Parts: sequence; structure tokens; C-alpha cells
Amino acid sequence: MAEDDRNLSLDNQVSTEAANAVDPVVQDQLAPWRSPLSHALHRNRALAYARYGQLATVRADGRPANRTVVFRGFLDQPEGFGWNGLKFICDRRSSKVNELDNNPWAEFCWYFPKTREQFRLAGTVILEVGLDDNLLATVRAQTWEAISTKAQASFYWPEPGEMRAEADAFRIPIVDASLPSENFVLLVLQPERVDHLELRGDPQHRWQYKKLSSNHQWTRQTVNP
Amino acid sequence: MAEDDRNLSLDNQVSTEAANAVDPVVQDQLAPWRSPLSHALHRNRALAYARYGQLATVRADGRPANRTVVFRGFLDQPEGFGWNGLKFICDRRSSKVNELDNNPWAEFCWYFPKTREQFRLAGTVILEVGLDDNLLATVRAQTWEAISTKAQASFYWPEPGEMRAEADAFRIPIVDASLPSENFVLLVLQPERVDHLELRGDPQHRWQYKKLSSNHQWTRQTVNP
Repeated sequence: MAEDDRNLSLDNQVSTEAANAVDPVVQDQLAPWRSPLSHALHRNRALAYARYGQLATVRADGRPANRTVVFRGFLDQPEGFGWNGLKFICDRRSSKVNELDNNPWAEFCWYFPKTREQFRLAGTVILEVGLDDNLLATVRAQTWEAISTKAQASFYWPEPGEMRAEADAFRIPIVDASLPSENFVLLVLQPERVDHLELRGDPQHRWQYKKLSSNHQWTRQTVNP
Repeated sequence: MAEDDRNLSLDNQVSTEAANAVDPVVQDQLAPWRSPLSHALHRNRALAYARYGQLATVRADGRPANRTVVFRGFLDQPEGFGWNGLKFICDRRSSKVNELDNNPWAEFCWYFPKTREQFRLAGTVILEVGLDDNLLATVRAQTWEAISTKAQASFYWPEPGEMRAEADAFRIPIVDASLPSENFVLLVLQPERVDHLELRGDPQHRWQYKKLSSNHQWTRQTVNP
């Protein structure tokens, strides 16, 4: 690969391929960082915790908050919603819901132990609580059905972060498991900037992806680690 | 353990033990979350990446930033500095230095895969660049000596995050490796709040520790997961 290409490559691959593609919508919309991220997920699939990452938000007092969350897959919707969204779930009573209500920006830091690489994905987060009948409400209901009965039960537990309740308070029978708990929130992170670092290599490899607000196309730049 | 003790235990263990302790300074100063954290480090020691965690900061524009950093041990100094500080290192040219200069608050999220537990440690970060002759400058120099030659060399590399330089630019010989690079920064996170979650257990176990500003003593509360 020529030096210029390695140094700064406006990623035209997506749009040029789209013209000839069988499924132009898919080709047009998958961000260029999706391919290396899919590789990382595949190569680390033996580790259950390779699907865990850390979601940083900002508290009302301007201090950062950071906690581990489980990646629940991508939201790629040809109609009615954006592409490349990362799905997470949380309890409506957890602090991050208030934090994201107040400041929707988040950065998800995702380290893959086996391949020794990191993705940092920054963007805004949409909170879906299922009050309206729309696409995201449907996705929320599907996500609820996909989690375990034990995970479903946790949304009926006593208030998170409050003084520990007695054991009986955690044994609430679910009346109708087919309906999501009202505490069940779907989070969709819509990345606008992605930083990919491969620790293997000397010097390491690092790429930055940015979504242009003008045309929603992604650029990719090879940068110093 | 009695229900009341489990529900809300102001951690008096430290101060009561201190009165009878052989080493009252150590007993008085080690925070109560140090013991479970030491256990986690020990039980996960087979995984090199159990010493990696994610440090969240806030950018100048009010958005969060989040990246993986390596834990470099505790800073426990009987004189001249606080206790229970977590040491990290970074390049002076990296974004987090500017971010922490602007807003010293950080939250370090530390997930231990083997024991399935998480520590969230929130506090302010001190940046030590070695300009003055003080205790932290000495610790910085010691920390420099403890890292590998390869890691030392990376502080002489071209500007991080800039357009990728040519290969030759990464082959800078170190003139004097006994002196830290001027780009070498020691970070010390001084926790004020710690949240410890054990995923094992049904329901999970969770504790919150807070440092009282009045007397610098720590409280511990058992909370709902």
C-alpha cells in the first residue's frame, strides 16, 4: 500500500462499492469500522466478556461516570432509524438514564483481550422506554424477549443503589414475562467518532473514523498510536 | 451477620482497629475497599489484562472520553501525600492530559473477568510531569525505571493522534534512558467514591464506599445491585 494511502485515506470504498452492489442500501450504510469490529468480535468470541465494554457518561455535576455494560448487537434498520447503532439495556432507575437524559453524549470503550485491540466509540445515546408505538419500541420488546428469565426478573428488584433490601424483596414473581418491565430501557449508541487501536505491532496501529455531518459519510485516517 | 449489619454498615473497622494496631498509620490510612480490591487482583493475577481498566474523563466540550489504561500500583505514602492513590502513566501529548487539566475528575472502571466483579473508582487525578523536586517527581522517576525499554521508547514517538508518520520517525534512539522523557506523565487517581459489584450471587452483591470530607474516614454501605 502506498504511503499516502496508509497515511490518510478518505474511505471511498463504501460509496464506490454501493454503485455496483446487489444490496446498495446495506453497502451504503455500514460504516467502515464495522468490518474490523466484526473481526474482533469473531476472533474473541470464546470469551463471554469480550462482549462487555465500559460506557462513560457525564453526571449532572460535570464529573464523569463509567460502568461495564453488555453489547446487545447492532441496530441496522433500513427504514425509520439510523444504522450502526450499538444496543445496550439498563434499568430505568440507574444513574446513567438520568445522566443521558441530561447529556446524551457517551463513549463506549471496548477492549478485546485475545486480539489485544481497543475500540472507542463516541456518540449520542437514545433511550427507549416503550411508551410510543414505533420501531424502537418494537426493538425494545424483541430485546426483552431475548434476555434470560433471570435477567428479566432483575428489572423488578428493589431500587438499584439504595440501601440493601431484605432477601424477600428480590423474589417478586413476574406476572407477565411477555411484556417488558416498565423499568426496562433500550439504549442505542449512535457513533460519530471511532478510534481503533491494535496493540500488536511495533509501533502499534491506530485508525480514527469520523462521520461527516454534511453527508453522513465516514472518513478514516491512519494516525500515530 | 445480622440483617442490620448487612444493610448498612458504617465501616468502623478501620478506626477501632487502629487503636490497638501494631502499625497505626497503616491501619488508619488503608481504605476499606483496598482489601476486596487486593483480593480481586490476586485472584485474577493469571490474566495480564486484569490490570487494565477504563479511565473516563470529560472533554472541554462537556462530552465524556474513555480509554483503557494499565494500573501501575498504589501510591501509599506515609508522609507528604495521600493514601490509596492509583498510579497510571500516559503521554503528555495525549488528550487525557488536557482533559484532566481542565477537569480533574475521573472514574476508573475496573472489571475482573475471572471473579466477575467490578470496581468503579471516582476521584480527582493529579498529573505529575517532574518539573519540581518533590515526592511525586521521585515516584515518577521510579515508575519510569520500572517500565520496559520498549514502553520508554514510545514516549519519543511522533505526536499521538496525528496523521501517521513514516516508519523511521518511530526509531528515535533514547539518549539517556535513566531520565524520564519529558512526555512521561504520572497520573495519580485519588478515589473518593468506590462502587464494588460482584456479579456472582443471586441477587448480586454491591457495596458503596464514600470518603467523608470532614474527617477523611471512609463509610461503607451495602446497596441493591
